[in-house]
Amino acid sequence: MVMIGASILSANYGHMAEEVRRAEEAKVDFFHVDIMDGHFVPNLSMGLKVPEYLQDITHGTKIDVHLMVENPDIFIPKIAEASDMVSFHAEATKFLFRTVDLIADNGAKPIVALNPSTSISNIEYVLENLYGVLIMTVEPGFSGQSFINPMLKKIDKLKNLILTEGYDTKIFVDGGINTTTAPKVVEAGADALIAASAIYGKDDVVKAVQDLRASANFKI
Amino acid sequence: MVMIGASILSANYGHMAEEVRRAEEAKVDFFHVDIMDGHFVPNLSMGLKVPEYLQDITHGTKIDVHLMVENPDIFIPKIAEASDMVSFHAEATKFLFRTVDLIADNGAKPIVALNPSTSISNIEYVLENLYGVLIMTVEPGFSGQSFINPMLKKIDKLKNLILTEGYDTKIFVDGGINTTTAPKVVEAGADALIAASAIYGKDDVVKAVQDLRASANFKI
Amino acid sequence: MVMIGASILSANYGHMAEEVRRAEEAKVDFFHVDIMDGHFVPNLSMGLKVPEYLQDITHGTKIDVHLMVENPDIFIPKIAEASDMVSFHAEATKFLFRTVDLIADNGAKPIVALNPSTSISNIEYVLENLYGVLIMTVEPGFSGQSFINPMLKKIDKLKNLILTEGYDTKIFVDGGINTTTAPKVVEAGADALIAASAIYGKDDVVKAVQDLRASANFKI
Amino acid sequence: MVMIGASILSANYGHMAEEVRRAEEAKVDFFHVDIMDGHFVPNLSMGLKVPEYLQDITHGTKIDVHLMVENPDIFIPKIAEASDMVSFHAEATKFLFRTVDLIADNGAKPIVALNPSTSISNIEYVLENLYGVLIMTVEPGFSGQSFINPMLKKIDKLKNLILTEGYDTKIFVDGGINTTTAPKVVEAGADALIAASAIYGKDDVVKAVQDLRASANFKI
Amino acid sequence: MVMIGASILSANYGHMAEEVRRAEEAKVDFFHVDIMDGHFVPNLSMGLKVPEYLQDITHGTKIDVHLMVENPDIFIPKIAEASDMVSFHAEATKFLFRTVDLIADNGAKPIVALNPSTSISNIEYVLENLYGVLIMTVEPGFSGQSFINPMLKKIDKLKNLILTEGYDTKIFVDGGINTTTAPKVVEAGADALIAASAIYGKDDVVKAVQDLRASANFKI
Amino acid sequence: MVMIGASILSANYGHMAEEVRRAEEAKVDFFHVDIMDGHFVPNLSMGLKVPEYLQDITHGTKIDVHLMVENPDIFIPKIAEASDMVSFHAEATKFLFRTVDLIADNGAKPIVALNPSTSISNIEYVLENLYGVLIMTVEPGFSGQSFINPMLKKIDKLKNLILTEGYDTKIFVDGGINTTTAPKVVEAGADALIAASAIYGKDDVVKAVQDLRASANFKI
Repeated sequence: MVMIGASILSANYGHMAEEVRRAEEAKVDFFHVDIMDGHFVPNLSMGLKVPEYLQDITHGTKIDVHLMVENPDIFIPKIAEASDMVSFHAEATKFLFRTVDLIADNGAKPIVALNPSTSISNIEYVLENLYGVLIMTVEPGFSGQSFINPMLKKIDKLKNLILTEGYDTKIFVDGGINTTTAPKVVEAGADALIAASAIYGKDDVVKAVQDLRASANFKI
Repeated sequence: MVMIGASILSANYGHMAEEVRRAEEAKVDFFHVDIMDGHFVPNLSMGLKVPEYLQDITHGTKIDVHLMVENPDIFIPKIAEASDMVSFHAEATKFLFRTVDLIADNGAKPIVALNPSTSISNIEYVLENLYGVLIMTVEPGFSGQSFINPMLKKIDKLKNLILTEGYDTKIFVDGGINTTTAPKVVEAGADALIAASAIYGKDDVVKAVQDLRASANFKI
Repeated sequence: MVMIGASILSANYGHMAEEVRRAEEAKVDFFHVDIMDGHFVPNLSMGLKVPEYLQDITHGTKIDVHLMVENPDIFIPKIAEASDMVSFHAEATKFLFRTVDLIADNGAKPIVALNPSTSISNIEYVLENLYGVLIMTVEPGFSGQSFINPMLKKIDKLKNLILTEGYDTKIFVDGGINTTTAPKVVEAGADALIAASAIYGKDDVVKAVQDLRASANFKI
Repeated sequence: MVMIGASILSANYGHMAEEVRRAEEAKVDFFHVDIMDGHFVPNLSMGLKVPEYLQDITHGTKIDVHLMVENPDIFIPKIAEASDMVSFHAEATKFLFRTVDLIADNGAKPIVALNPSTSISNIEYVLENLYGVLIMTVEPGFSGQSFINPMLKKIDKLKNLILTEGYDTKIFVDGGINTTTAPKVVEAGADALIAASAIYGKDDVVKAVQDLRASANFKI
Repeated sequence: MVMIGASILSANYGHMAEEVRRAEEAKVDFFHVDIMDGHFVPNLSMGLKVPEYLQDITHGTKIDVHLMVENPDIFIPKIAEASDMVSFHAEATKFLFRTVDLIADNGAKPIVALNPSTSISNIEYVLENLYGVLIMTVEPGFSGQSFINPMLKKIDKLKNLILTEGYDTKIFVDGGINTTTAPKVVEAGADALIAASAIYGKDDVVKAVQDLRASANFKI
Repeated sequence: MVMIGASILSANYGHMAEEVRRAEEAKVDFFHVDIMDGHFVPNLSMGLKVPEYLQDITHGTKIDVHLMVENPDIFIPKIAEASDMVSFHAEATKFLFRTVDLIADNGAKPIVALNPSTSISNIEYVLENLYGVLIMTVEPGFSGQSFINPMLKKIDKLKNLILTEGYDTKIFVDGGINTTTAPKVVEAGADALIAASAIYGKDDVVKAVQDLRASANFKI
């Protein structure tokens, strides 16, 4: 069963507790928090305290933080304590084993994110130590972009590598996910889908999540 | 009459519309938004969309954005459109006249912020083009720090320079402001005080603002 | 038929219009402009206005700009408008799809350049969106260096990948190209050759281009 | 007698030898070459070989290079050998004495350039070792900007410091220089004026230089 | 026969000549010097003069310098003159061929070091020009860490590539080497082992080296 | 009485315990340790463990560490614990109050170092919180350079400021100190002199220190 994560990047900032309640009613599997530093990506989204705030207003739904920042090690201890899963970018550090250990040592599950053009050869050796790989299917930094098609080949290639090696690493996919792209990425091998505007951009959040889940579990 | 700004850095994130309402009831003169990039300062606070969100949930109270970021010019066009005042750090750019013009051209009033140790000789020539100077009285990056006493000398020196030259640039002060430090900085020459925990850290926000205002207007 | 590009890096700066005329008489397929920023490579060659100037003094010959710069996105809008093809380095950005789109959106054909040691796994997914790949056969930054022999294997490997996938991406080769190396790189799979000193370093530019073209089209 | 320098930033690239001839006919005192790296300033203008090329096509007129680059020490040995005067920015290095010595050791006269907002306290100790100070009267990076008025105070203050200390350091001024601003900066203390569009932007270069010279030597 | 290198990172600083004597008595094949810059790795270990000092106090034992620094080219000329082998990191430069040539031109044997997660595709083309590859089996920067197991796969894969291509490049291994891990890395293909605490952390240095050598040459 | 510090930058690395003994016999007031990172200055000298090692081999002589590094805050906790005084550069941080507090909180006395061209206006406000100011009288990075004469004016100006304000901050001087320059800097206001080659570059270290001390205490 494919997991669905709601990215609060598209949620209403003035009434966050209510936005969280709507997504929990829709039974999303996790909340996804995009933290950007204006350096790794050319945008600044939200701050380090968001996971902590979310803990206060959620009711057991898991929290997944995506660090789109340079020097992620500086921020991980604080972030990992308040989150269930933490992803950082392979392009943001030369020491992937160290950062993976830092996340795990602070109590969260480690995920490595890859930009669209980045080869999976960059995670070849660390793969078995990961809870997940986050395949970006748009360039990170902004919501509302279109799905990049060659990413289906990449998801497929990664899935094969994971199965061949016998790892239990999960594949997360983020970017341009909607009811059209969801079945394709699941077919290619995705285990979890993250959506922003396809959930919070809709009037009826519960129905939006149901539609997405239905499309994701549809066999092509 | 000294202006009072409420820094939302200490506000409750889950219920921001309500937090804004309380401060407006207390008749704060402006909301202060601290945007940090994890590079200029070792913290990441909130994102570029916050001024826009605030516009939706405020009722005419002015919005003042403090950019604690490197390369502020990248973010200013978006920020200045949704704000009344924008400050950037003298330590973050080599081209102060260009950044000041960029803020003004995008419709906001330009303010230059100075770290505690930074000499006012750095703004000697651009001073007459500024709406204000923001004197940091703690090292920027975190709320809840203690007021740095030698800053009183700096405020005094800047006030004298402004008066001597006949400019109408205003002095804003941020960091460790409470009912004890407020009268001292006003005595030294401050025109506007920014407070975070001294407002949102109190149970009764209305009373907190009244107390701060009273202390600020008390003649020593 | 292999294309020949004349790199103006070795042309006479005082009389550029005349230098352009000589190469057009020799019927080069395109002019190649190397823009360096002293950061991506340890040299500063020529400025952003060169493509525009070239448009004024050429007579229909295509213009190909090679950006050996960090942060190419800053310069691409201006450059792409005055050029036919623009290449940037895979080593200079983490967001290859974004930069490729930026070039295309500004009206030029996108090419990705690779330093000699860079693996083609870095362009595996973006390859189908490219007009060309520029294989550097010397370390970028200076003219007059010797061809790096292991690059023949790389050209061959890339050609096989392009043919296998059925893409129509072209292979450009730059560095140490002369009548000795030209037939080898064409044999390995090159579609376009760029030469600086092998053209403008010769007394008779027309003959130099003819010789290069003859060697390139010679079947080994 | 005030010196006039012609900045080739506004000259016609295709016919540089001819552009040089016109300015020499107008008896400019020196050619001014702006080298930008796209990092210190957000523009890339021309390359390191330009001073050398200019030596070939000038007839004894002095060459003055303005390095608007980070890490100027990397480029100075090559540049200083082909120039008479070399300026670097106080904002681009922490080691002004070292860079000044490097220029002198390579045979050129050292000048320190200051951005408009930069205080002259930054050159207080190195001043006596300098041939000149280059006061930027627009933000560096682009031609055609308007003169920044508070710079007159800065030129005046620097002139007083030089006279008081008995140094023979010269004041160069660059940015927005034309027949209107020239007399003001000379009145304030300038010894040399640099003009780009006010010379090469005019149809009659000889008359443009004569007009500028006349305005500069006019007593207010 | 596997080579053993003694890393002086764990030696007694106050009595270095004596420490060197003990290791030479134990007949180590080379001394290994880790130079860190606090930027490539988050530690600062020892300076550029160490190889030179070692030359004075050694008696013919080879010196191998491991540059864990950004911009290695700046330091290589000085270092290579006083060393037999010099390694730099593939992650620290975009121009591997240039740095390899720089080491060789200054009289030392070039080695490229790879962080644990770095793919060997990054050295695919330069491999034949190398004296060795240094596989880091812990994240670089600190001694006393545990061997990262997936590195055995990497050593094995690299060995196969070297054998298939018929190169004579040697495999060096550094990180967590002791009598338990030594036989495994040798089995996987290592030609040289570097040890710090497993040699200088023991009371009897001679015995420590003998034990290590015995374990390394033991056939599994 | 002027204090004399022996910089171990010129000591014999192979026999450090003996070098320390000689200087202690000469009754130097403190040992001075120059730590460079190859980024703040273009040299790498010695590592973070040196103060700790010195503690083992000294007999009560104070240890003074001079951090010529970027981002000094990363290294200060470790360094300050093993030292008596720690200096960092005003040019290396934007947050002088924070770094000064960090040194004091970790048990050492805080000193701010200034490059030769740096104005004392940069330490105007933090001055009263400092144990000392370290005036560099050569550009930092290498031993054996000549004293920069305009530094006498700077020492004099700083001394006057300290006396006028009634602070007890001490003035340390480092660079080109010998029996000729020592009396001049003491006359200008220095409280402590640091020497490298003038101590360890002499055959008789005890006599070298005595000569230096005598010259320093000689009234001009």
